[in-house]
Amino acid sequence: MTFRQKHLLGIEPLHPTEITTILDLADGYADRPTDTRHRDVLAGMTQINMFFENSTRTQASFELAGKRLGADVMNMAMQASSIKKGETLIDTALTLNAMHPDLLVVRHPHSGAVDLLSQKVNGAVLNAGDGRHEHPTQALLDALTIRRAKGRLHRLSVAICGDIAHSRVARSNIMLLGKMENRVRLIGPPTLMPAGISEFGVEVFNDMEEGLKDVDVVMMLRLQKERMDGGFIPSEREYFHRYGLNAEKLKHAKADAIVMHPGPMNRGVEIDGTIADDINRSVIQTQVEMGVAVRMAAMDLLAQNLRAARKSSVIA
Amino acid sequence: MTFRQKHLLGIEPLHPTEITTILDLADGYADRPTDTRHRDVLAGMTQINMFFENSTRTQASFELAGKRLGADVMNMAMQASSIKKGETLIDTALTLNAMHPDLLVVRHPHSGAVDLLSQKVNGAVLNAGDGRHEHPTQALLDALTIRRAKGRLHRLSVAICGDIAHSRVARSNIMLLGKMENRVRLIGPPTLMPAGISEFGVEVFNDMEEGLKDVDVVMMLRLQKERMDGGFIPSEREYFHRYGLNAEKLKHAKADAIVMHPGPMNRGVEIDGTIADDINRSVIQTQVEMGVAVRMAAMDLLAQNLRAARKSSVIA
Amino acid sequence: MTFRQKHLLGIEPLHPTEITTILDLADGYADRPTDTRHRDVLAGMTQINMFFENSTRTQASFELAGKRLGADVMNMAMQASSIKKGETLIDTALTLNAMHPDLLVVRHPHSGAVDLLSQKVNGAVLNAGDGRHEHPTQALLDALTIRRAKGRLHRLSVAICGDIAHSRVARSNIMLLGKMENRVRLIGPPTLMPAGISEFGVEVFNDMEEGLKDVDVVMMLRLQKERMDGGFIPSEREYFHRYGLNAEKLKHAKADAIVMHPGPMNRGVEIDGTIADDINRSVIQTQVEMGVAVRMAAMDLLAQNLRAARKSSVIA
Repeated sequence: MTFRQKHLLGIEPLHPTEITTILDLADGYADRPTDTRHRDVLAGMTQINMFFENSTRTQASFELAGKRLGADVMNMAMQASSIKKGETLIDTALTLNAMHPDLLVVRHPHSGAVDLLSQKVNGAVLNAGDGRHEHPTQALLDALTIRRAKGRLHRLSVAICGDIAHSRVARSNIMLLGKMENRVRLIGPPTLMPAGISEFGVEVFNDMEEGLKDVDVVMMLRLQKERMDGGFIPSEREYFHRYGLNAEKLKHAKADAIVMHPGPMNRGVEIDGTIADDINRSVIQTQVEMGVAVRMAAMDLLAQNLRAARKSSVIA
Repeated sequence: MTFRQKHLLGIEPLHPTEITTILDLADGYADRPTDTRHRDVLAGMTQINMFFENSTRTQASFELAGKRLGADVMNMAMQASSIKKGETLIDTALTLNAMHPDLLVVRHPHSGAVDLLSQKVNGAVLNAGDGRHEHPTQALLDALTIRRAKGRLHRLSVAICGDIAHSRVARSNIMLLGKMENRVRLIGPPTLMPAGISEFGVEVFNDMEEGLKDVDVVMMLRLQKERMDGGFIPSEREYFHRYGLNAEKLKHAKADAIVMHPGPMNRGVEIDGTIADDINRSVIQTQVEMGVAVRMAAMDLLAQNLRAARKSSVIA
Repeated sequence: MTFRQKHLLGIEPLHPTEITTILDLADGYADRPTDTRHRDVLAGMTQINMFFENSTRTQASFELAGKRLGADVMNMAMQASSIKKGETLIDTALTLNAMHPDLLVVRHPHSGAVDLLSQKVNGAVLNAGDGRHEHPTQALLDALTIRRAKGRLHRLSVAICGDIAHSRVARSNIMLLGKMENRVRLIGPPTLMPAGISEFGVEVFNDMEEGLKDVDVVMMLRLQKERMDGGFIPSEREYFHRYGLNAEKLKHAKADAIVMHPGPMNRGVEIDGTIADDINRSVIQTQVEMGVAVRMAAMDLLAQNLRAARKSSVIA
């Protein structure tokens, strides 16, 4: 087995063969998501979902993934207000840890909070999004979607478009696609482009038509209004005019380019509804489907490592 | 088998034999609600409860029904605010559909929203109440309660009393009781009576004593203050005086007439507490009990049809 | 078997041998909390958690305990607003009862509400905290923690420190520790000491150094600001200076005294963070761990009595 992580905190620490291991396993889960034989994979294990930020769809995806693998799944509604002090996050982590969870799925508004929490617990931690830092399962489900649509996950030209600066989705995808030797183009207004982005080995465009030229994959991002504090906020209409994906702009991509969006979509803001619903181009629903499969695979692999570690600690 | 529906969207599309099929199956579940052999009925199936309106008791009833049949049950807390645009409801439906739910239980504040959603998904949809339109499982549990108390579900005289205009419970009950050849009387102030009600083949009364005369069943409705926008709002005291059920008014019904209420009750508004608690007349707790049984039966039948459809699509 | 209760409403009705029975059984669960063989204990049983007050950690502990024993667990989010009238709490109880729950875990802001509810239902009720009255599973988990740390649960000197007046945790602990023949000292400002406390056979101190002298166990309480209506509210800084546990004050206790806190902690208010984290003194995480075990044991014993009662009622 070539997956050696204790936690899934981000794409950054993963070796390309580890990414492939997750995707290969997820492929099988995607083909038979509800096979009752999967029930044994996490039988007797406890999965706790701690979402310090609301996310109906990501939490649902992790919950279903866990239940289909036979885990006891518990959702804990965390209020950001109760964790204002850093020390309290640690107390929460220690309290949970004392309940012996095997898998902890954590979303948190602060970058690095999930890493911090992982250092205090015995179980495996999965990052379900932390601040502007990482959202590894989103990047993995995007990768699986691309691999199934394009037949490969290397030497592709992928455009990530929109609000790059505020997007942990973009960040995790840039790293994953780079590790797998694809060419990544970032398209967006200069104000929504992060500082020091050039070091990631990506090309930066401020013009959609130029940036989309001949790409295999068009990955749109959600306009994260809630994360924009103070800076430039474009009007939705102006934003759609310049950076919203429509049929005309899409013509510049390859004829068989696929269209992606992590959801939930702002139709008419970052993407035209007709494009989103075009089953010949859009793989947006497939992304959701692959989300459950990828999370099943990640939890399966982490649980295997957890069992192996416990076994060897008993022997030693 | 005489139940041919893909979804349970309302009473309107059901044939009387389909109603009887549900009730017969529910009878068995009512006798042994927690028998562990029921676990196989929905084993490996995923049930998602999507409540765009709060309803602690209906959601709990569906959740218990699903768990007792062995389903993986997931509650999704939907906020009406996130679905202001019709298109977004569709996006939510498509997202959920991509997670492969087998059974979707949906409550929504807008009439017709559940039908719309059912057209976009592969699983079976159960309407848990949509606007002022239908609430089919409530009518079915009321029917089962009546049938068990009265020994039959035809040629009975049933009075539905109170806020008819705002009540999907009344609407579904009127249709069900009509299909099963009962006589339905509606009693309430003219302002709380829906327009064009006469076409349903019911008798309308504005006076309780007159309307209750010799009925077998007295079905009280909750005063839906939250659904009354603008129109006539009676004072609670005045309402109770004229339309609240008390011992005196009940005397006009048959001596063995049963008293029903869908809950939660406004004691002292639409019903006197003494009547509600009179175990010789009130079957209000039985209604709750039959609720779980009817939902088990409905999900059982829909799952059977779903499995049969999947099998035949594989063969074809 | 020496546990004869139908419900677990408080420590007050328990015989010392019943307390020992729970703790002995909990000891086994604490050693192997996630053993899948426990699944049969509550298989086919329905556990409903009704929390009329929020409590993430207590609800999580009961939920995990139930799931590890194989119960169907359902959380019902109750809003205190919907139960303003006493009659409505009863209606809620009757409604739930009609759904045939076997175990009802209830937290309620009013003292006595859980007792009232228990009189209306057929299943076993567990008090998860009612007003200022009792919180029996907290006292039991504290007792198990002490017994495992000290090797016994009698002839110990235990100091309970802080906001005694508002604390159901203190009240349940005082009774349990008294029944098991320990010496209990209460330490806190006169304004936070309940009236008539002397009748419980405890010693009362207003000075920490004096009160902590030679005790085996130091049990700190959370400062319950939300329960203080009107009376004296000390500044946090002043409170910590006089009654907060720090290394200096702790020196007055025995050299091997353990430090406890029911959580969540206000670090720097009632306890110094360094003491809370000192693994040689603090057993705060162990308390959480024992919480799951004690709740498993309590539900196991109540379920046994429930099954026995049902069996004998069938025979009779």
